[in-house]
Amino acid sequence: MTGPAPLTEIWRGPMAESRHTGHAVICDGSGEIVEAWGNPAEAVYPRSSAKMIQALPLIESGAAGAYGLTAEQLALACASHNGAAIHTDRVKAWLADLGLGDDDFRCGPQVPDDDAARFALIRAYEAPCQVHNNCSGKHAGFLTLAQHLGAGPEYVEPDHPVQKACLAAFEEVTGEESPGYGIDGCSAPNFITSLHGMARAMARFACAEDGKDARQSAQHRLWQAMVAHPELVAGEGRACTELMRACSEPVALKTGAEGFFIAILPSRQMGIALKITDGATRAAECTIAALLVRLGVLDPGHPAARARLNAPIRNRRGIETGRIVPDAGLL
Amino acid sequence: MTGPAPLTEIWRGPMAESRHTGHAVICDGSGEIVEAWGNPAEAVYPRSSAKMIQALPLIESGAAGAYGLTAEQLALACASHNGAAIHTDRVKAWLADLGLGDDDFRCGPQVPDDDAARFALIRAYEAPCQVHNNCSGKHAGFLTLAQHLGAGPEYVEPDHPVQKACLAAFEEVTGEESPGYGIDGCSAPNFITSLHGMARAMARFACAEDGKDARQSAQHRLWQAMVAHPELVAGEGRACTELMRACSEPVALKTGAEGFFIAILPSRQMGIALKITDGATRAAECTIAALLVRLGVLDPGHPAARARLNAPIRNRRGIETGRIVPDAGLL
Repeated sequence: MTGPAPLTEIWRGPMAESRHTGHAVICDGSGEIVEAWGNPAEAVYPRSSAKMIQALPLIESGAAGAYGLTAEQLALACASHNGAAIHTDRVKAWLADLGLGDDDFRCGPQVPDDDAARFALIRAYEAPCQVHNNCSGKHAGFLTLAQHLGAGPEYVEPDHPVQKACLAAFEEVTGEESPGYGIDGCSAPNFITSLHGMARAMARFACAEDGKDARQSAQHRLWQAMVAHPELVAGEGRACTELMRACSEPVALKTGAEGFFIAILPSRQMGIALKITDGATRAAECTIAALLVRLGVLDPGHPAARARLNAPIRNRRGIETGRIVPDAGLL
Repeated sequence: MTGPAPLTEIWRGPMAESRHTGHAVICDGSGEIVEAWGNPAEAVYPRSSAKMIQALPLIESGAAGAYGLTAEQLALACASHNGAAIHTDRVKAWLADLGLGDDDFRCGPQVPDDDAARFALIRAYEAPCQVHNNCSGKHAGFLTLAQHLGAGPEYVEPDHPVQKACLAAFEEVTGEESPGYGIDGCSAPNFITSLHGMARAMARFACAEDGKDARQSAQHRLWQAMVAHPELVAGEGRACTELMRACSEPVALKTGAEGFFIAILPSRQMGIALKITDGATRAAECTIAALLVRLGVLDPGHPAARARLNAPIRNRRGIETGRIVPDAGLL
């Protein structure tokens, strides 16, 4: 079995101070590996990189149609957002459309990453709500599906119809039986697959034809929603948002906790999945940027690329003290 | 050459989600290796774990005596503090004693980690000052030494008498010529050594006898100041502070950025230095706790140990989703 490959180094002065290894797979539309680093068979939790898979039952069940969900709502269902007003205002309105409130969520409260939203809460001496949780769009989708199915309120339980539908979709698009699950930061099950399985799933999204069948139409609609609303998928300054805007063709990008990243490349009919062994976001962002450059969809001179690829590390006086450097094997 | 050793795993559900490797060395008073994991010859930046070495010239020059520095001030000189009022009030008073102000610092401003201090700044619409920088105690020490020496204001320049004195002390206590330096987050040079050199230096602190000579008296005074004021070395809730309080005998502990940690164990006449390959603090904290348990100075059932060693990872609803697990080779 292949071990993890070197992917990113953190340089300071004359030497690398820290090093990140991991696994990365690029798949084509047939699900075959085009290129890989490390071990494609590595068992992984895709974490939030699986959100567009978790959103498939929302569309395929007819719920999205019945509730008239917009592309903005579908982008939020796939999002790990910053909890900025552009995110929470839309999720609150969605909840209101369902006749539900913050207490109906099961994701738990989270301090928003967005400075303005966080500062406003602190200045008002208010605690964050569940709508501020970076996964609140996904959970609004879960609640919509649960209501459409007439299912109970505990929609994150693994035996709830919502999660059973998510598992079925997950195993179908990865092409693998999931050997188990962990509980995610937002309390939903997060299913295990191989990294190859996850890259295969992303390639299937990339190849999906609108109108072909319910699955492909849903996949097509979801990546289009992500690409149309990059600011809703993450937030200003975030890698997913900035890199989706920077790509020279439509590419859907999604980070996941613990150093996960995926890409859906419809024009190339390819999918990418990668996992940093130690879980570091800085290395996942550098690695996905390097692979997008490698595939010719990202200009390495674009500011969004330069902020992740050979990005300067600056200290508290703004002095450059080091760089985040992709491994030569990625270039 | 030996590669890094497995040190810490991050478990979620039925499997490890992320893995951290690294290097660790335990040295005795003669500077010989008692035990090691990974490669003792690994070149490292000790970052803030070197602060007690950087404080040696402050005492040995006579500056600490001339300015009547207290044990609290010496603990702050060795600190990476949270920017809480207990830290910043003391550093401000120290600056005032020197007839200097915040603008004389060269560490740069930093948002304090301490919630009360950070919230107060946000509510007052104020930016943080340099005194809030986690290194402001070390820089107050640098300013004191510079003033004592009659040297210029640019005390973080590598050719400034303060930094030349730090380099000389660093090479003497590590027993190695430093092959170079990087610029630290606080703009001071951070000198490279081997991990063995750093563990040897910590063992020398552990063996230092008060009154033996200027070097040993200074080393003895510094670890005693750290052990006497654990809350000044880091802050409430932080690993250095909590673990120093938890140890069954005096042990000086100090974290460094990018996954560094050291321990000075005077009763055992031993020093520890460790570096996590990928720079993760969670793994450095788990590993140092495991080594303190291994050496018999930390009860694994103590809450401060349990918060780092096999510590539960909880999600946004407080549900345990995983554990931070030390590698079996550490136990």
